[in-house]
Amino acid sequence: MSNFLSEENSAETVNARMGDSTDPRMRQVMTSLVEHLHAFVKDVELTEQEWAAAIGFLTRTGQICSATRQEFILLSDVLGLSMLVDAIHHRRPSGATENTVLGPFHVAGAPERGMGETISLDGVGESCLYQGRVLDLDGNPVANAVIDVWSDNADGYYDVQQPDIQPPMNNRGVFRTGADGTFSFRGIKPVSYPIPDDGPVGQLLEQVGRHPYRPAHIHFLVSAEGYEGITTHMFVAGDPYLDSDSVFGVKQSLIAAFEKRAGADTEWQAAFDFVLKKAE
Amino acid sequence: MSNFLSEENSAETVNARMGDSTDPRMRQVMTSLVEHLHAFVKDVELTEQEWAAAIGFLTRTGQICSATRQEFILLSDVLGLSMLVDAIHHRRPSGATENTVLGPFHVAGAPERGMGETISLDGVGESCLYQGRVLDLDGNPVANAVIDVWSDNADGYYDVQQPDIQPPMNNRGVFRTGADGTFSFRGIKPVSYPIPDDGPVGQLLEQVGRHPYRPAHIHFLVSAEGYEGITTHMFVAGDPYLDSDSVFGVKQSLIAAFEKRAGADTEWQAAFDFVLKKAE
Repeated sequence: MSNFLSEENSAETVNARMGDSTDPRMRQVMTSLVEHLHAFVKDVELTEQEWAAAIGFLTRTGQICSATRQEFILLSDVLGLSMLVDAIHHRRPSGATENTVLGPFHVAGAPERGMGETISLDGVGESCLYQGRVLDLDGNPVANAVIDVWSDNADGYYDVQQPDIQPPMNNRGVFRTGADGTFSFRGIKPVSYPIPDDGPVGQLLEQVGRHPYRPAHIHFLVSAEGYEGITTHMFVAGDPYLDSDSVFGVKQSLIAAFEKRAGADTEWQAAFDFVLKKAE
Repeated sequence: MSNFLSEENSAETVNARMGDSTDPRMRQVMTSLVEHLHAFVKDVELTEQEWAAAIGFLTRTGQICSATRQEFILLSDVLGLSMLVDAIHHRRPSGATENTVLGPFHVAGAPERGMGETISLDGVGESCLYQGRVLDLDGNPVANAVIDVWSDNADGYYDVQQPDIQPPMNNRGVFRTGADGTFSFRGIKPVSYPIPDDGPVGQLLEQVGRHPYRPAHIHFLVSAEGYEGITTHMFVAGDPYLDSDSVFGVKQSLIAAFEKRAGADTEWQAAFDFVLKKAE
């Protein structure tokens, strides 16, 4: 009888069970998921021991999740799935600033600061002047664009990871461009850091011979009325992990030169323009 | 630069990261898994909201697991993956008894009982005489084969699910064939029951319009020296859920007729032979 599962018909048998009133998109997603998971199991002839190991891995991954840790997002990140979803849904015309992952450390409600002010509240780290413009695809300045910025500290931790050590909102701030589209602020040159690697995802990385590091980067959310908002990073050129970001977030266009300054109030400077596409 | 992930190269980029000293089987399994997961995401163009819903689903699935509940096994079961792994690794020649899933309710160390004895310790349910033979592929009796049997009670629960209601080892027993390969024991006619459906997997079944029921069945582990052991069920012919077992465990060859008995010590009888293949 055709309703019984066999090696030959397994995915079709599972998918044929779906009820007629299943939401069409749910049907499409589940049908594809079942087809690909069954094809994977057949492809490698997954053994019962490997299956049991996978069940154990997924269980530990779920159980280590807490209010301050999301190990399944980390798993998605290191498998390149987070960046793939991001890429598919943020296709932009050539010249527009590319997206990359939001990451888990954005905090809504960072203080709005005046142009040129610093986001480094503890003054720890190599100081850096950031400056650039927000432009449209034709090169015209975008006034009143909101730039929400955050980075790690000199030890590679975000303020929310060290509530007892860093002041709240350390290395975070919101800036607004003027009529000429320019922005500037001071902060620190970010440093590379490992993603949390003391759990199942860290063990997986070790098993496949991968390190947990992300190259140094500073995060930006840029938005302006009438334009499509962007979620991106500025990566520090020359970082040793640019080619091996553990979460695959790097894009060539997002790498920025950080230049040493002589006789100035900051040790470094970095320039970066954001180019926005009109909202549809 | 080719090390950066894009829509076009995403799976290859992730897989190229694996270290040279990665265990070859680990490399094979992870390469295939990454390829299939990326193909799935591209196939359906999974949205950021759907991705977030999936992360939430997997997290809840992990967090509901406990010493007495394994929701990821349940998820594997309802997606047909458990039966697929079982099918791939228990291919048998025509005529040999087929495998099906072990399920979560086997208990090692059930009492060995004499032929004809009952496994129903509480006497609740429709009584049934089970009898049959253990044979080799040529039809010769297999002596001294061990038959480990377990089933649910009349309410659809195994003893371990109701430690305060059922006596320990209710509807469980171990039997050993004599020189003629025959076995017989008494128990109850099993009933269909839902898998645990008050968690994420139950919600998934509801979203795709599927019920959580398994058709009535009694479990067997059959082993004999020199033969490949089998893990299987005997399903009750006529059960309304045979065509829609929530875990896809049914095979045509495992369906047994249960016959009404008149004027006998049990209400029902069922006959079933187990055919073992020689161990390699």
